[in-house]
Amino acid sequence: MWVFYNGKILDLENVTISPFDRAFQFGDGVYEVIRYYPEKFFEYDSHLDRLKSSLKKLEISFTAFVNIESILYELIRKNNLDDQLSIAYIQISRGVQFPRRHYFDDGMEPTVFMYVEKFPARQEEMKSGVKAGLEEDIRWMRCDIKTTSLLPNVLSKQRAVKNGVTEIIWHRNGFITEGTQTNVCFIKNNELITPPLSNFILPGITRGIVLRLCKKLGITTTERDIKLSELNGFDEILLLSTTAEVIPVIEADGKIINNRIPGPVCRLLQGEYQKLYNAESR
Amino acid sequence: MWVFYNGKILDLENVTISPFDRAFQFGDGVYEVIRYYPEKFFEYDSHLDRLKSSLKKLEISFTAFVNIESILYELIRKNNLDDQLSIAYIQISRGVQFPRRHYFDDGMEPTVFMYVEKFPARQEEMKSGVKAGLEEDIRWMRCDIKTTSLLPNVLSKQRAVKNGVTEIIWHRNGFITEGTQTNVCFIKNNELITPPLSNFILPGITRGIVLRLCKKLGITTTERDIKLSELNGFDEILLLSTTAEVIPVIEADGKIINNRIPGPVCRLLQGEYQKLYNAESR
Repeated sequence: MWVFYNGKILDLENVTISPFDRAFQFGDGVYEVIRYYPEKFFEYDSHLDRLKSSLKKLEISFTAFVNIESILYELIRKNNLDDQLSIAYIQISRGVQFPRRHYFDDGMEPTVFMYVEKFPARQEEMKSGVKAGLEEDIRWMRCDIKTTSLLPNVLSKQRAVKNGVTEIIWHRNGFITEGTQTNVCFIKNNELITPPLSNFILPGITRGIVLRLCKKLGITTTERDIKLSELNGFDEILLLSTTAEVIPVIEADGKIINNRIPGPVCRLLQGEYQKLYNAESR
Repeated sequence: MWVFYNGKILDLENVTISPFDRAFQFGDGVYEVIRYYPEKFFEYDSHLDRLKSSLKKLEISFTAFVNIESILYELIRKNNLDDQLSIAYIQISRGVQFPRRHYFDDGMEPTVFMYVEKFPARQEEMKSGVKAGLEEDIRWMRCDIKTTSLLPNVLSKQRAVKNGVTEIIWHRNGFITEGTQTNVCFIKNNELITPPLSNFILPGITRGIVLRLCKKLGITTTERDIKLSELNGFDEILLLSTTAEVIPVIEADGKIINNRIPGPVCRLLQGEYQKLYNAESR
Protein backbone atom coordinates (compact mmCIF):
# COMPACT_ATOMS: atom_id res chain seq x y z
CA MET A 1 0.00 0.00 0.00
CA TRP A 2 1.50 3.31 -1.10
CA VAL A 3 1.00 6.21 1.27
CA PHE A 4 2.33 9.74 1.62
CA TYR A 5 4.43 10.67 4.63
CA ASN A 6 6.34 13.92 5.12
CA GLY A 7 7.15 14.66 1.52
CA LYS A 8 7.50 11.15 0.15
CA ILE A 9 5.37 8.40 -1.29
CA LEU A 10 6.34 5.28 0.60
CA ASP A 11 5.20 1.79 1.28
CA LEU A 12 3.07 1.88 4.46
CA GLU A 13 5.58 -0.44 6.15
CA ASN A 14 8.26 2.22 5.81
CA VAL A 15 6.34 4.99 7.60
CA THR A 16 7.85 5.49 11.02
CA ILE A 17 6.04 7.91 13.26
CA SER A 18 8.05 9.26 16.16
CA PRO A 19 6.70 8.49 19.64
CA PHE A 20 7.26 12.22 20.24
CA ASP A 21 4.88 13.17 17.48
CA ARG A 22 2.30 15.39 19.14
CA ALA A 23 -0.54 13.47 17.51
CA PHE A 24 0.69 10.36 19.34
CA GLN A 25 1.17 12.05 22.73
CA PHE A 26 -1.46 14.82 22.72
CA GLY A 27 -4.01 14.16 19.97
CA ASP A 28 -2.61 17.38 18.56
CA GLY A 29 -3.58 17.09 14.91
CA VAL A 30 -6.36 17.56 12.36
CA TYR A 31 -7.69 15.41 9.57
CA GLU A 32 -10.02 15.15 6.60
CA VAL A 33 -11.68 12.27 4.78
CA ILE A 34 -12.53 12.92 1.12
CA ARG A 35 -14.62 10.73 -1.18
CA TYR A 36 -13.13 9.59 -4.47
CA TYR A 37 -15.90 8.86 -6.96
CA PRO A 38 -14.03 7.59 -10.01
CA GLU A 39 -12.30 9.53 -11.30
CA LYS A 40 -12.52 12.62 -9.15
CA PHE A 41 -12.24 13.71 -5.52
CA PHE A 42 -15.65 15.09 -4.62
CA GLU A 43 -15.90 18.55 -3.07
CA TYR A 44 -12.14 18.67 -2.77
CA ASP A 45 -12.06 22.43 -2.32
CA SER A 46 -14.59 22.33 0.53
CA HIS A 47 -12.53 19.73 2.38
CA LEU A 48 -9.36 21.71 1.81
CA ASP A 49 -11.03 24.87 3.13
CA ARG A 50 -12.12 23.04 6.27
CA LEU A 51 -8.63 21.59 6.68
CA LYS A 52 -7.17 25.09 6.47
CA SER A 53 -9.70 26.30 9.01
CA SER A 54 -8.91 23.45 11.45
CA LEU A 55 -5.17 24.12 11.13
CA LYS A 56 -5.65 27.83 11.68
CA LYS A 57 -7.80 27.28 14.79
CA LEU A 58 -5.05 25.10 16.27
CA GLU A 59 -2.22 27.37 15.06
CA ILE A 60 -0.56 24.54 13.13
CA SER A 61 1.59 26.25 10.55
CA PHE A 62 1.18 24.08 7.47
CA THR A 63 1.27 25.82 4.11
CA ALA A 64 1.95 23.26 1.34
CA PHE A 65 -1.73 22.97 0.41
CA VAL A 66 -1.11 23.37 -3.29
CA ASN A 67 0.50 19.92 -3.54
CA ILE A 68 -2.11 17.83 -1.75
CA GLU A 69 -4.55 17.17 -4.59
CA SER A 70 -1.91 15.95 -7.04
CA ILE A 71 -0.40 13.70 -4.35
CA LEU A 72 -3.82 12.17 -3.69
CA TYR A 73 -4.32 11.45 -7.41
CA GLU A 74 -0.86 9.92 -7.53
CA LEU A 75 -1.77 7.70 -4.56
CA ILE A 76 -4.95 6.63 -6.35
CA ARG A 77 -2.93 5.74 -9.45
CA LYS A 78 -0.11 3.95 -7.64
CA ASN A 79 -2.60 1.88 -5.62
CA ASN A 80 -4.61 0.98 -8.75
CA LEU A 81 -7.77 2.56 -7.43
CA ASP A 82 -8.52 4.72 -10.48
CA ASP A 83 -11.87 3.04 -11.11
CA GLN A 84 -12.71 2.18 -7.48
CA LEU A 85 -14.97 4.02 -5.10
CA SER A 86 -12.42 5.12 -2.50
CA ILE A 87 -11.56 7.59 0.21
CA ALA A 88 -8.54 9.74 0.93
CA TYR A 89 -7.43 10.31 4.51
CA ILE A 90 -5.31 13.37 5.26
CA GLN A 91 -3.82 13.91 8.71
CA ILE A 92 -1.64 16.83 9.68
CA SER A 93 -0.25 16.93 13.19
CA ARG A 94 1.72 19.68 14.83
CA GLY A 95 4.90 17.63 14.48
CA VAL A 96 7.58 16.09 16.63
CA GLN A 97 8.65 17.82 19.84
CA PHE A 98 11.25 16.61 22.31
CA PRO A 99 11.33 16.81 25.26
CA ARG A 100 7.62 16.33 25.80
CA ARG A 101 5.71 19.33 27.10
CA HIS A 102 2.20 20.62 26.61
CA TYR A 103 2.94 23.95 24.97
CA PHE A 104 4.46 24.12 21.53
CA ASP A 105 7.05 26.09 19.63
CA ASP A 106 6.14 28.42 16.82
CA GLY A 107 6.99 27.23 13.34
CA MET A 108 7.17 23.52 14.08
CA GLU A 109 7.44 21.20 11.07
CA PRO A 110 4.06 19.45 10.81
CA THR A 111 3.77 15.71 10.27
CA VAL A 112 1.75 14.93 7.15
CA PHE A 113 0.29 11.49 6.54
CA MET A 114 -2.10 10.67 3.70
CA TYR A 115 -3.44 7.48 2.25
CA VAL A 116 -6.18 6.30 -0.06
CA GLU A 117 -8.26 3.20 0.41
CA LYS A 118 -10.99 1.36 -1.44
CA PHE A 119 -14.17 2.20 0.43
CA PRO A 120 -17.49 0.90 -0.91
CA ALA A 121 -20.76 2.81 -0.80
CA ARG A 122 -22.93 2.14 2.24
CA GLN A 123 -25.66 0.98 -0.14
CA GLU A 124 -27.63 -1.28 2.17
CA GLU A 125 -27.74 1.40 4.88
CA MET A 126 -28.71 4.06 2.36
CA LYS A 127 -31.46 1.84 0.98
CA SER A 128 -32.95 0.30 4.11
CA GLY A 129 -31.98 2.79 6.78
CA VAL A 130 -30.30 2.34 10.13
CA LYS A 131 -31.00 2.42 13.85
CA ALA A 132 -29.58 5.22 15.96
CA GLY A 133 -29.14 5.55 19.70
CA LEU A 134 -29.15 8.69 21.81
CA GLU A 135 -26.50 9.87 24.26
CA GLU A 136 -25.51 13.01 26.06
CA ASP A 137 -22.84 14.90 24.12
CA ILE A 138 -19.91 15.03 26.54
CA ARG A 139 -17.30 16.30 24.09
CA TRP A 140 -15.28 19.46 24.50
CA MET A 141 -16.76 22.73 23.29
CA ARG A 142 -14.77 23.12 20.06
CA CYS A 143 -16.49 20.44 18.02
CA ASP A 144 -16.21 22.75 15.02
CA ILE A 145 -12.54 21.71 14.70
CA LYS A 146 -11.89 18.37 13.00
CA THR A 147 -9.16 17.17 15.35
CA THR A 148 -7.64 13.77 16.04
CA SER A 149 -8.55 14.07 19.76
CA LEU A 150 -11.47 11.76 18.99
CA LEU A 151 -11.85 9.73 22.13
CA PRO A 152 -15.46 10.75 22.95
CA ASN A 153 -16.47 9.89 19.37
CA VAL A 154 -14.69 6.54 19.66
CA LEU A 155 -16.37 5.63 22.94
CA SER A 156 -19.89 6.55 21.79
CA LYS A 157 -19.42 4.71 18.50
CA GLN A 158 -18.19 1.66 20.40
CA ARG A 159 -21.35 1.67 22.52
CA ALA A 160 -23.40 2.00 19.33
CA VAL A 161 -21.79 -1.11 17.86
CA LYS A 162 -22.20 -3.02 21.13
CA ASN A 163 -25.87 -2.04 21.24
CA GLY A 164 -26.55 -3.00 17.65
CA VAL A 165 -27.15 0.51 16.33
CA THR A 166 -25.25 2.27 13.57
CA GLU A 167 -24.85 5.73 15.00
CA ILE A 168 -25.31 7.70 18.22
CA ILE A 169 -27.13 11.02 17.98
CA TRP A 170 -25.84 13.33 20.68
CA HIS A 171 -27.70 15.96 22.68
CA ARG A 172 -26.25 18.68 24.89
CA ASN A 173 -28.24 20.69 27.42
CA GLY A 174 -31.43 19.23 25.98
CA PHE A 175 -30.67 20.06 22.35
CA ILE A 176 -29.63 17.78 19.48
CA THR A 177 -26.07 18.38 18.27
CA GLU A 178 -24.88 15.75 15.79
CA GLY A 179 -23.81 12.11 15.42
CA THR A 180 -20.41 10.63 16.30
CA GLN A 181 -19.43 10.68 12.62
CA THR A 182 -22.36 12.42 10.97
CA ASN A 183 -24.41 15.59 10.98
CA VAL A 184 -28.08 15.01 11.57
CA CYS A 185 -31.13 16.66 10.02
CA PHE A 186 -34.85 16.21 10.34
CA ILE A 187 -37.81 16.44 7.97
CA LYS A 188 -41.22 17.71 9.00
CA ASN A 189 -43.92 18.65 6.48
CA ASN A 190 -41.40 18.91 3.65
CA GLU A 191 -39.15 21.22 5.70
CA LEU A 192 -35.55 20.26 6.48
CA ILE A 193 -34.48 21.27 9.99
CA THR A 194 -30.91 20.98 11.26
CA PRO A 195 -28.90 22.45 14.14
CA PRO A 196 -27.14 25.71 13.22
CA LEU A 197 -23.37 25.87 12.86
CA SER A 198 -21.69 26.65 16.17
CA ASN A 199 -18.80 25.47 18.30
CA PHE A 200 -20.92 22.41 19.16
CA ILE A 201 -21.04 20.77 15.72
CA LEU A 202 -18.72 20.07 12.82
CA PRO A 203 -19.43 22.13 9.71
CA GLY A 204 -20.09 19.03 7.60
CA ILE A 205 -19.37 19.19 3.88
CA THR A 206 -22.32 16.89 3.14
CA ARG A 207 -24.49 19.03 5.42
CA GLY A 208 -23.60 22.06 3.27
CA ILE A 209 -24.33 20.19 0.04
CA VAL A 210 -27.69 18.95 1.30
CA LEU A 211 -28.71 22.47 2.36
CA ARG A 212 -27.83 23.72 -1.13
CA LEU A 213 -29.70 20.84 -2.78
CA CYS A 214 -32.80 21.64 -0.71
CA LYS A 215 -32.77 25.24 -1.87
CA LYS A 216 -32.52 24.06 -5.48
CA LEU A 217 -35.37 21.60 -4.94
CA GLY A 218 -37.67 24.09 -3.18
CA ILE A 219 -37.44 22.32 0.18
CA THR A 220 -37.50 24.87 3.00
CA THR A 221 -34.40 24.65 5.19
CA THR A 222 -34.32 25.87 8.77
CA GLU A 223 -31.16 25.94 10.87
CA ARG A 224 -32.30 26.14 14.47
CA ASP A 225 -31.82 24.57 17.88
CA ILE A 226 -33.75 21.31 18.10
CA LYS A 227 -35.02 20.11 21.44
CA LEU A 228 -34.50 16.48 22.30
CA SER A 229 -38.21 16.32 23.08
CA GLU A 230 -39.01 17.13 19.44
CA LEU A 231 -37.38 13.92 18.25
CA ASN A 232 -40.58 11.90 18.10
CA GLY A 233 -42.41 14.45 16.01
CA PHE A 234 -40.39 14.28 12.80
CA ASP A 235 -41.37 12.56 9.56
CA GLU A 236 -37.78 11.62 8.69
CA ILE A 237 -34.36 11.67 10.31
CA LEU A 238 -31.27 11.76 8.09
CA LEU A 239 -27.59 11.20 8.82
CA LEU A 240 -25.14 13.06 6.60
CA SER A 241 -21.44 12.52 6.03
CA THR A 242 -18.82 12.11 3.34
CA THR A 243 -19.01 8.32 3.43
CA ALA A 244 -22.63 8.00 4.59
CA GLU A 245 -23.90 10.49 1.99
CA VAL A 246 -27.59 10.54 3.07
CA ILE A 247 -28.62 7.66 5.34
CA PRO A 248 -32.16 7.45 6.74
CA VAL A 249 -32.74 6.61 10.41
CA ILE A 250 -35.63 4.16 10.73
CA GLU A 251 -35.41 3.71 14.48
CA ALA A 252 -34.16 6.30 16.96
CA ASP A 253 -33.69 5.41 20.61
CA GLY A 254 -35.95 2.39 20.09
CA LYS A 255 -38.78 4.42 18.55
CA ILE A 256 -39.81 3.55 15.01
CA ILE A 257 -39.73 6.32 12.42
CA ASN A 258 -42.33 6.24 9.60
CA ASN A 259 -42.93 2.49 9.97
CA ARG A 260 -39.25 1.87 9.22
CA ILE A 261 -39.70 3.14 5.66
CA PRO A 262 -37.16 5.72 4.44
CA GLY A 263 -39.14 8.79 3.48
CA PRO A 264 -39.58 10.72 0.25
CA VAL A 265 -37.24 13.60 1.11
CA CYS A 266 -34.50 11.09 1.89
CA ARG A 267 -34.99 9.37 -1.47
CA LEU A 268 -35.05 12.69 -3.31
CA LEU A 269 -31.86 13.92 -1.62
CA GLN A 270 -30.06 10.61 -2.15
CA GLY A 271 -30.84 10.79 -5.87
CA GLU A 272 -29.85 14.42 -6.23
CA TYR A 273 -26.63 13.85 -4.26
CA GLN A 274 -25.76 10.98 -6.59
CA LYS A 275 -26.49 13.12 -9.67
CA LEU A 276 -24.16 15.73 -8.26
CA TYR A 277 -21.13 13.50 -7.85
CA ASN A 278 -21.88 11.69 -11.09
CA ALA A 279 -21.89 15.05 -12.89
CA GLU A 280 -18.64 16.09 -11.20
CA SER A 281 -16.76 12.82 -11.75
CA ARG A 282 -16.44 10.84 -14.98
CA MET B 1 18.41 7.57 24.83
CA TRP B 2 17.10 4.15 25.84
CA VAL B 3 13.34 3.76 25.85
CA PHE B 4 10.88 0.91 26.13
CA TYR B 5 8.61 0.07 23.22
CA ASN B 6 6.36 -2.97 22.92
CA GLY B 7 8.42 -5.41 24.92
CA LYS B 8 11.91 -4.17 24.11
CA ILE B 9 14.40 -1.64 25.36
CA LEU B 10 15.54 0.25 22.28
CA ASP B 11 17.33 3.36 21.24
CA LEU B 12 14.69 6.07 20.74
CA GLU B 13 15.70 6.33 17.08
CA ASN B 14 14.58 2.75 16.53
CA VAL B 15 11.03 3.22 17.82
CA THR B 16 8.65 3.22 14.86
CA ILE B 17 5.06 3.99 15.68
CA SER B 18 2.55 2.92 13.04
CA PRO B 19 0.47 5.71 11.50
CA PHE B 20 -2.46 3.40 12.22
CA ASP B 21 -1.75 3.42 15.93
CA ARG B 22 -4.96 4.61 17.52
CA ALA B 23 -3.08 7.11 19.68
CA PHE B 24 -1.85 8.77 16.48
CA GLN B 25 -5.24 8.81 14.73
CA PHE B 26 -7.72 9.04 17.61
CA GLY B 27 -5.93 10.16 20.76
CA ASP B 28 -6.97 6.72 21.99
CA GLY B 29 -4.50 6.12 24.80
CA VAL B 30 -3.68 6.80 28.43
CA TYR B 31 -0.54 7.89 30.21
CA GLU B 32 1.18 8.50 33.53
CA VAL B 33 4.12 10.63 34.64
CA ILE B 34 5.95 9.39 37.73
CA ARG B 35 8.64 11.23 39.71
CA TYR B 36 11.96 9.52 40.30
CA TYR B 37 13.60 10.91 43.43
CA PRO B 38 16.94 9.10 43.56
CA GLU B 39 16.77 6.23 43.93
CA LYS B 40 13.07 5.46 43.99
CA PHE B 41 9.92 6.08 41.98
CA PHE B 42 7.65 8.04 44.28
CA GLU B 43 4.08 6.84 44.86
CA TYR B 44 4.58 4.23 42.19
CA ASP B 45 1.60 2.16 43.35
CA SER B 46 -0.76 5.14 43.25
CA HIS B 47 0.26 5.94 39.67
CA LEU B 48 -0.12 2.31 38.68
CA ASP B 49 -3.59 2.19 40.23
CA ARG B 50 -4.63 5.28 38.28
CA LEU B 51 -3.17 3.81 35.10
CA LYS B 52 -5.21 0.66 35.64
CA SER B 53 -8.30 2.76 36.26
CA SER B 54 -7.77 4.82 33.07
CA LEU B 55 -7.28 1.67 31.01
CA LYS B 56 -10.38 0.07 32.47
CA LYS B 57 -12.51 3.15 31.78
CA LEU B 58 -11.41 3.06 28.12
CA GLU B 59 -11.63 -0.74 27.88
CA ILE B 60 -7.98 -1.04 26.83
CA SER B 61 -7.02 -4.61 27.66
CA PHE B 62 -3.50 -4.28 28.99
CA THR B 63 -2.46 -6.70 31.70
CA ALA B 64 1.38 -6.80 31.94
CA PHE B 65 1.47 -4.38 34.88
CA VAL B 66 3.82 -6.53 36.92
CA ASN B 67 6.75 -5.77 34.62
CA ILE B 68 6.50 -1.99 34.44
CA GLU B 69 8.38 -1.03 37.58
CA SER B 70 11.43 -3.16 36.84
CA ILE B 71 11.53 -1.85 33.27
CA LEU B 72 11.48 1.73 34.56
CA TYR B 73 14.39 1.03 36.91
CA GLU B 74 16.25 -0.59 34.03
CA LEU B 75 15.66 2.53 31.92
CA ILE B 76 16.98 4.69 34.77
CA ARG B 77 20.09 2.55 34.97
CA LYS B 78 20.74 2.30 31.23
CA ASN B 79 20.33 6.06 30.84
CA ASN B 80 22.68 6.77 33.77
CA LEU B 81 20.02 8.61 35.72
CA ASP B 82 20.40 6.66 38.98
CA ASP B 83 21.34 9.77 40.95
CA GLN B 84 19.35 12.31 38.93
CA LEU B 85 15.97 13.81 39.71
CA SER B 86 13.96 12.40 36.80
CA ILE B 87 10.54 11.43 35.52
CA ALA B 88 9.14 8.33 33.91
CA TYR B 89 6.54 8.64 31.15
CA ILE B 90 4.29 5.67 30.48
CA GLN B 91 1.90 5.68 27.54
CA ILE B 92 -0.40 2.81 26.63
CA SER B 93 -2.56 3.18 23.56
CA ARG B 94 -5.22 0.82 22.29
CA GLY B 95 -2.89 -0.38 19.56
CA VAL B 96 -2.70 -0.53 15.79
CA GLN B 97 -5.87 -1.02 13.77
CA PHE B 98 -6.17 -1.17 10.01
CA PRO B 99 -8.28 -0.17 8.21
CA ARG B 100 -9.06 2.96 10.19
CA ARG B 101 -12.44 3.07 11.87
CA HIS B 102 -13.75 4.63 15.04
CA TYR B 103 -14.86 1.53 16.89
CA PHE B 104 -12.36 -1.02 18.05
CA ASP B 105 -11.93 -4.76 18.27
CA ASP B 106 -11.88 -6.59 21.58
CA GLY B 107 -8.51 -7.90 22.68
CA MET B 108 -6.33 -5.57 20.61
CA GLU B 109 -2.61 -5.61 21.39
CA PRO B 110 -1.87 -2.30 23.13
CA THR B 111 1.10 -0.14 22.16
CA VAL B 112 3.35 0.50 25.17
CA PHE B 113 5.89 3.30 25.16
CA MET B 114 7.92 4.33 28.21
CA TYR B 115 10.88 6.56 28.74
CA VAL B 116 12.74 8.26 31.57
CA GLU B 117 14.18 11.72 31.43
CA LYS B 118 16.20 13.97 33.70
CA PHE B 119 13.70 16.50 35.02
CA PRO B 120 14.86 19.08 37.57
CA ALA B 121 12.78 20.33 40.47
CA ARG B 122 10.76 23.46 39.77
CA GLN B 123 12.61 25.13 42.63
CA GLU B 124 12.28 28.75 41.65
CA GLU B 125 8.52 28.37 41.09
CA MET B 126 8.14 26.51 44.36
CA LYS B 127 10.07 29.18 46.20
CA SER B 128 8.78 32.41 44.64
CA GLY B 129 5.38 31.33 43.33
CA VAL B 130 3.79 31.75 39.92
CA LYS B 131 1.09 33.67 38.11
CA ALA B 132 -2.04 31.87 36.95
CA GLY B 133 -4.70 32.88 34.46
CA LEU B 134 -8.36 31.90 34.41
CA GLU B 135 -10.31 30.31 31.57
CA GLU B 136 -13.56 28.50 31.03
CA ASP B 137 -13.06 24.74 31.19
CA ILE B 138 -14.21 23.55 27.76
CA ARG B 139 -12.92 19.98 28.02
CA TRP B 140 -15.04 16.88 27.67
CA MET B 141 -16.84 15.54 30.72
CA ARG B 142 -14.52 12.62 31.55
CA CYS B 143 -11.59 14.59 32.91
CA ASP B 144 -11.16 11.84 35.50
CA ILE B 145 -9.46 9.72 32.82
CA LYS B 146 -5.80 10.51 32.10
CA THR B 147 -5.99 10.21 28.31
CA THR B 148 -3.73 11.38 25.50
CA SER B 149 -6.63 13.34 23.93
CA LEU B 150 -5.06 16.45 25.47
CA LEU B 151 -5.83 19.16 22.95
CA PRO B 152 -7.82 21.45 25.30
CA ASN B 153 -5.00 21.24 27.86
CA VAL B 154 -2.46 22.03 25.14
CA LEU B 155 -4.36 25.06 23.87
CA SER B 156 -4.94 26.57 27.32
CA LYS B 157 -1.33 25.99 28.31
CA GLN B 158 -0.19 27.64 25.09
CA ARG B 159 -2.27 30.72 25.91
CA ALA B 160 -0.77 30.71 29.41
CA VAL B 161 2.75 30.79 27.99
CA LYS B 162 1.82 33.50 25.47
CA ASN B 163 0.31 35.57 28.27
CA GLY B 164 3.29 35.17 30.59
CA VAL B 165 1.56 33.04 33.20
CA THR B 166 2.55 29.57 34.34
CA GLU B 167 -0.80 27.86 34.56
CA ILE B 168 -4.45 28.31 33.66
CA ILE B 169 -7.02 27.59 36.36
CA TRP B 170 -10.22 26.41 34.74
CA HIS B 171 -13.81 27.00 35.79
CA ARG B 172 -16.95 25.28 34.53
CA ASN B 173 -20.48 26.53 35.10
CA GLY B 174 -19.11 29.07 37.56
CA PHE B 175 -17.09 26.59 39.62
CA ILE B 176 -13.33 26.03 39.80
CA THR B 177 -12.24 22.67 38.39
CA GLU B 178 -8.44 22.37 38.08
CA GLY B 179 -5.40 23.57 36.14
CA THR B 180 -4.27 22.37 32.70
CA GLN B 181 -1.61 20.19 34.37
CA THR B 182 -2.33 20.58 38.06
CA ASN B 183 -5.00 20.21 40.69
CA VAL B 184 -5.73 23.38 42.56
CA CYS B 185 -6.47 23.96 46.24
CA PHE B 186 -7.12 26.99 48.39
CA ILE B 187 -6.29 28.01 51.93
CA LYS B 188 -8.59 30.10 54.10
CA ASN B 189 -8.07 30.48 57.86
CA ASN B 190 -5.85 27.40 58.02
CA GLU B 191 -8.43 25.28 56.14
CA LEU B 192 -7.53 23.59 52.85
CA ILE B 193 -10.40 23.65 50.35
CA THR B 194 -10.32 21.80 47.04
CA PRO B 195 -12.92 20.67 44.49
CA PRO B 196 -14.25 17.17 45.15
CA LEU B 197 -13.37 14.25 42.91
CA SER B 198 -15.82 13.93 40.03
CA ASN B 199 -15.82 13.42 36.29
CA PHE B 200 -14.65 17.04 35.97
CA ILE B 201 -11.19 16.69 37.53
CA LEU B 202 -8.27 14.30 37.49
CA PRO B 203 -7.77 12.36 40.71
CA GLY B 204 -4.29 13.78 41.25
CA ILE B 205 -1.75 11.70 43.12
CA THR B 206 -0.23 14.84 44.67
CA ARG B 207 -3.72 16.04 45.58
CA GLY B 208 -4.23 12.80 47.49
CA ILE B 209 -0.87 13.11 49.25
CA VAL B 210 -1.53 16.72 50.27
CA LEU B 211 -4.95 15.81 51.69
CA ARG B 212 -3.31 13.06 53.76
CA LEU B 213 -0.53 15.41 54.90
CA CYS B 214 -3.11 17.96 56.03
CA LYS B 215 -4.89 15.38 58.15
CA LYS B 216 -1.57 14.46 59.75
CA LEU B 217 -0.77 18.14 60.36
CA GLY B 218 -4.18 19.01 61.80
CA ILE B 219 -5.15 21.22 58.87
CA THR B 220 -8.87 20.91 58.17
CA THR B 221 -9.56 19.72 54.62
CA THR B 222 -12.82 20.38 52.82
CA GLU B 223 -13.65 18.95 49.43
CA ARG B 224 -16.45 21.08 48.05
CA ASP B 225 -17.53 23.02 44.98
CA ILE B 226 -15.76 26.37 44.86
CA LYS B 227 -17.42 29.31 43.16
CA LEU B 228 -15.29 31.38 40.82
CA SER B 229 -16.45 34.40 42.77
CA GLU B 230 -14.74 33.06 45.90
CA LEU B 231 -11.33 33.29 44.25
CA ASN B 232 -10.45 36.67 45.72
CA GLY B 233 -11.23 35.65 49.27
CA PHE B 234 -8.53 33.03 49.82
CA ASP B 235 -5.31 33.43 51.81
CA GLU B 236 -3.33 31.09 49.58
CA ILE B 237 -3.76 29.28 46.27
CA LEU B 238 -1.71 26.14 45.60
CA LEU B 239 -1.06 24.14 42.44
CA LEU B 240 -0.39 20.43 42.89
CA SER B 241 1.13 17.90 40.53
CA THR B 242 3.75 15.21 40.29
CA THR B 243 6.36 17.58 38.84
CA ALA B 244 5.07 20.80 40.44
CA GLU B 245 4.78 19.21 43.91
CA VAL B 246 3.27 22.23 45.74
CA ILE B 247 3.59 25.54 43.89
CA PRO B 248 2.07 28.73 45.31
CA VAL B 249 0.09 31.10 43.10
CA ILE B 250 1.03 34.70 43.87
CA GLU B 251 -1.14 36.30 41.21
CA ALA B 252 -4.41 34.90 39.87
CA ASP B 253 -6.14 36.53 36.93
CA GLY B 254 -4.08 39.68 37.57
CA LYS B 255 -5.05 39.89 41.23
CA ILE B 256 -2.27 39.75 43.79
CA ILE B 257 -2.47 37.04 46.45
CA ASN B 258 -1.05 37.79 49.93
CA ASN B 259 1.26 40.55 48.62
CA ARG B 260 2.94 38.01 46.35
CA ILE B 261 4.32 36.16 49.37
CA PRO B 262 3.83 32.38 49.42
CA GLY B 263 1.90 31.61 52.59
CA PRO B 264 2.62 29.51 55.67
CA VAL B 265 0.48 26.51 54.68
CA CYS B 266 2.28 26.34 51.36
CA ARG B 267 5.66 26.33 53.11
CA LEU B 268 4.55 23.72 55.60
CA LEU B 269 3.16 21.42 52.87
CA GLN B 270 6.25 21.84 50.68
CA GLY B 271 8.46 20.82 53.59
CA GLU B 272 6.32 17.86 54.57
CA TYR B 273 6.06 16.70 50.97
CA GLN B 274 9.84 16.81 50.69
CA LYS B 275 10.25 14.87 53.93
CA LEU B 276 7.92 12.25 52.53
CA TYR B 277 9.85 11.57 49.34
CA ASN B 278 13.15 11.84 51.14
CA ALA B 279 11.95 9.20 53.59
CA GLU B 280 10.76 6.96 50.77
CA SER B 281 13.85 7.30 48.59
CA ARG B 282 17.48 6.95 49.62
